[in-house]
Amino acid sequence: MERIETVEFTNMCMICDGSRVVVIDRKKRDWPGVTFPGGHVEPGESFTDAVIREVQEETGLNIRSPQLCGIKDWCENQCRFVVLLYKATCFDGELRSSPEGRVWWEDIADLPKLKLSLDMCDMLRVFTEEALSEFFYYQEGSAWKYDLK
Amino acid sequence: MERIETVEFTNMCMICDGSRVVVIDRKKRDWPGVTFPGGHVEPGESFTDAVIREVQEETGLNIRSPQLCGIKDWCENQCRFVVLLYKATCFDGELRSSPEGRVWWEDIADLPKLKLSLDMCDMLRVFTEEALSEFFYYQEGSAWKYDLK
Repeated sequence: MERIETVEFTNMCMICDGSRVVVIDRKKRDWPGVTFPGGHVEPGESFTDAVIREVQEETGLNIRSPQLCGIKDWCENQCRFVVLLYKATCFDGELRSSPEGRVWWEDIADLPKLKLSLDMCDMLRVFTEEALSEFFYYQEGSAWKYDLK
Repeated sequence: MERIETVEFTNMCMICDGSRVVVIDRKKRDWPGVTFPGGHVEPGESFTDAVIREVQEETGLNIRSPQLCGIKDWCENQCRFVVLLYKATCFDGELRSSPEGRVWWEDIADLPKLKLSLDMCDMLRVFTEEALSEFFYYQEGSAWKYDLK
């Protein structure tokens, strides 16, 4: 039983249409800035069902066959926070914003010009570089650091 | 706080050298049969570090840049069991068995001829088919069923 952890699961999805990706400028969050759509996984919910549901709620798009491509994780207050990172290239529906924030298509090359959320540039590498599968935060003394693995 | 889950993380890795993959015939386990190497993630340990460590312990091989390609998960007794599925094509070292079980290289096309562990054939599809990212077990009445997503 010593291998049991307390975990909060969330997800993010890079929806791609050629060189364009869907971004969201979140409202009213402690994590401001432009990021990819996503949200919480309900306890016991399939991870795939969760990312399909959250993307639908935030963008109006119905993604199919989202591909798991990495994980962001860190431990804080005896809890591990796990963000499952997905890519989706198959979808239908019309893009529409929600109360969560405005969404739009952006060329992936132009993302660094936007006001991105914290660490989004390095998270993007985990989405796009095949050799990377994890964005791992850890504490060294009182400082937070991270490695891409 | 209602989104917190109790979780046990493990991993499995398909180590590929062309069409050959490393398999392990586990000893003394409640889950017998031929499978891929892997093991437990320690609480707070990086997921990538954990799969590199487990593969080294069970096979003698040092894998580099393991790629996350899927998840197997199910809930039982108020716990979610999460198996992170990795592929690795970069490695060095000499293959050697351990007390965990005998390991050897097998052509991937010949896997169905072996005494595989339960559900290994469908798990293999999550490793090899890009459109699949999850092997999700659920209970329907007293029966366990699973979907590939």
